[in-house]
Amino acid sequence: MNARFKAQRETRDYQASDAAHHIHAFLDQKALNAEGPRVMVRGEGLYLWDNDGKRYLDGMSGLWCTNLGYGRQDLNAAAARQLEQLPYYNMFFHTTHPAVVELSEQLFELLPDHYSHALYTNSGSEANEVLIRTVRRYWQVVGKPGKRIMIGRWNGYHGSTLGSTALGGMQFMHEMGGMLPDFAHIDEPYWFAHGGELTPAEFGRRCALQLEEKILELGAENVAAFVAEPFQGAGGMIFPPESYWPEIQRICRQYDVLLCADEVIGGFGRTGEWFAHQHFGFQPDTLSIAKGLTSGYIPMGGLVLSKRIAEALVEQGGVFAHGLTYAGHPVAAAVAAANLRALRDEGIVERVKDETGPYLQRCLRELFGDHPLVGDIQGTGLVAALQFAEDKATRKRFDNESDIAWRCRTIGFEEGVIIRSTLGRVIMAPALVAGRTELDELLEKTKLAVDRTAQELGRL
Amino acid sequence: MNARFKAQRETRDYQASDAAHHIHAFLDQKALNAEGPRVMVRGEGLYLWDNDGKRYLDGMSGLWCTNLGYGRQDLNAAAARQLEQLPYYNMFFHTTHPAVVELSEQLFELLPDHYSHALYTNSGSEANEVLIRTVRRYWQVVGKPGKRIMIGRWNGYHGSTLGSTALGGMQFMHEMGGMLPDFAHIDEPYWFAHGGELTPAEFGRRCALQLEEKILELGAENVAAFVAEPFQGAGGMIFPPESYWPEIQRICRQYDVLLCADEVIGGFGRTGEWFAHQHFGFQPDTLSIAKGLTSGYIPMGGLVLSKRIAEALVEQGGVFAHGLTYAGHPVAAAVAAANLRALRDEGIVERVKDETGPYLQRCLRELFGDHPLVGDIQGTGLVAALQFAEDKATRKRFDNESDIAWRCRTIGFEEGVIIRSTLGRVIMAPALVAGRTELDELLEKTKLAVDRTAQELGRL
Repeated sequence: MNARFKAQRETRDYQASDAAHHIHAFLDQKALNAEGPRVMVRGEGLYLWDNDGKRYLDGMSGLWCTNLGYGRQDLNAAAARQLEQLPYYNMFFHTTHPAVVELSEQLFELLPDHYSHALYTNSGSEANEVLIRTVRRYWQVVGKPGKRIMIGRWNGYHGSTLGSTALGGMQFMHEMGGMLPDFAHIDEPYWFAHGGELTPAEFGRRCALQLEEKILELGAENVAAFVAEPFQGAGGMIFPPESYWPEIQRICRQYDVLLCADEVIGGFGRTGEWFAHQHFGFQPDTLSIAKGLTSGYIPMGGLVLSKRIAEALVEQGGVFAHGLTYAGHPVAAAVAAANLRALRDEGIVERVKDETGPYLQRCLRELFGDHPLVGDIQGTGLVAALQFAEDKATRKRFDNESDIAWRCRTIGFEEGVIIRSTLGRVIMAPALVAGRTELDELLEKTKLAVDRTAQELGRL
Repeated sequence: MNARFKAQRETRDYQASDAAHHIHAFLDQKALNAEGPRVMVRGEGLYLWDNDGKRYLDGMSGLWCTNLGYGRQDLNAAAARQLEQLPYYNMFFHTTHPAVVELSEQLFELLPDHYSHALYTNSGSEANEVLIRTVRRYWQVVGKPGKRIMIGRWNGYHGSTLGSTALGGMQFMHEMGGMLPDFAHIDEPYWFAHGGELTPAEFGRRCALQLEEKILELGAENVAAFVAEPFQGAGGMIFPPESYWPEIQRICRQYDVLLCADEVIGGFGRTGEWFAHQHFGFQPDTLSIAKGLTSGYIPMGGLVLSKRIAEALVEQGGVFAHGLTYAGHPVAAAVAAANLRALRDEGIVERVKDETGPYLQRCLRELFGDHPLVGDIQGTGLVAALQFAEDKATRKRFDNESDIAWRCRTIGFEEGVIIRSTLGRVIMAPALVAGRTELDELLEKTKLAVDRTAQELGRL
């Protein structure tokens, strides 16, 4: 590790101070304090170093966000330039600034012609909050104010604020703070877990038809939108069968229900397409974006609107009763524009589609296709999941599958690779700049972690 | 204007591109597009320059946030250093990093001993979202899950997400996206508008007693918290009478209702105290923070918890079912720590309290105490409002007071000073680094704007 970055303080000193003052996300803080968190101090490319000098290959792009990897001088320079020039100004006082204008230009150059306008936020949670308020406003403006209900999916993830939590389908999150009225959920299209005797294609259509049933149950005149991740991320990397999205799109069109894609995880090249909905071949009315938009260097999110929605809001909507102090923040916007430029100019998304994505997916299937612990492999581009199973043939899952995946992930950390566990799966989503060397190391260390887990279970 | 920052493109070119792709906050986008937004390109100290080279004295600290002014090399250097080292890592994977540890240390050094822990967010809206979920979780953990209702105030402002909008009292915002169950509101303590025949002290107590009535109406066993800004910001810079907060505190204690201060605008020195609740002399259970935390250079917010709440959550709470990807973002944290260090080491808050604050307040009263357009002057430290009135003695307001304040603010922009209009008031909140020279210019140009407004109305 470069001496420039050597530890300033003892790890246990950072840990003690952290325990004294800081509450972490999605953790049992008491247990964390007893154990002491890892202290990350440096990143470069796909690698991270902790305060004790240990190196990790980051197989999760931070948290699905550092698509360009760590240590990008072009993003740092964009931030520095903007900080020097104008570190902040608001968009409330009939004002704009070059950074946000240039970001919009970059963004809409990438997007299909179907979309025209964006609202900017600081996160994916805020993007989905704005989505809920914007969609309801849209229906008011076009004379259908009764259309208020948002339909999401069980195990879908859309953020951690009140509205985005309600939109998501994580019940343990609903219990903290409460569900809201005018939200409904349908099942996740996870064939391996719930497909039963149906073929994947039959199951995909069956899951989509749940949306039609739900719309009919609630009354189409009351339903504003269906919101979903093209593939589920935090809910366990679930790729729906191919039959799913065309049928969902047909239903949304038939009942005049907006189709809203949460592209927070899938957007900006993850699948080898610029946006995940393009991989699945459907056309959403809105796109929620964040994470890969700035490669995580500065917090930023946004909501992209189709021409139809934007035109109604702009031409007939009057004053838009929404605003965030840091919407379109100049430093975030400058970094996002530099990030999109790099993704485009370096041909990174194309490389994921044509080279690195197919390579990772092929190797995963070679390594784990017959592995005694692995029941299913999902993914495309640079995102993948291994579903552990007791019996692959019958798709029988382990009763304690969450513990097993957690154990595998913990071994991964020991071995110097960061993969994530969700339910009975381990998932990986490395930076899109990963080359063969890094992917080989990711595969090798993941294999080691899965093998060691299998050995502990006496299955290898 | 420094040649380095000269316009890269024509203003109308930026405007056309902005109109094509960007939806702004709290504006009629169609009207904005017709008019064309100002294009801000540079900031230095208290000054901003637009793309046509026009200079403005920023009397609003961006949007109540650039407390250290623009162009601070120490904040830029902190961002650059952290970007170089580790631009992002998450706090989910049993991990922390030095930047967030050091921020917490800085923050709790400033705070009274009553507080111990913080959760970090990307904005004030998210801080208040987390507040709602955290407060409800607290009551679950201590065995009173029925306590779910959040009481806010009419015209209070707590953000633009679904929960923070419901907590706030802006009805035009409730209409877009809808109110939520388990939120209630009491009146704002604005004596000039609503005091009638009562003295300010009597009125302050009367407003506070509304909280008691509301708690009794809803049942104390159902009420989780009362949430308010120590002084109302976006709702029109309303300073409650001195009798108000002690009575509110008594009521919250008596009925075991948490007292939650929204310090997003008032925090970090605005009133001449580090936090606005200290100016009013009460002790909240939680503090929502944002804006001045980073001087707006990088988006960041947070929620500070008292020891009592933090201890319950940490010791008995188990897994905390909440998390934001960018919570405790290293670049934001590094900038926040540098910002707090500068505010402290340069004695800026003390100067607001002892010198610049009293100076601004005294001059405002000298200049506008007998002004024919001004009915009331509110404020302390470096925040103030002028309430326009048709008749000061009877506190009769103009029927079209919003138009008058808007006109005054527009003239201000013409004269090169940025003040904000809210309802029938113009408000100012300059950067805390303002010296006499800048304050004199702020006063002089505000006087010019108010005078010109009065002349147009035939009152001067």
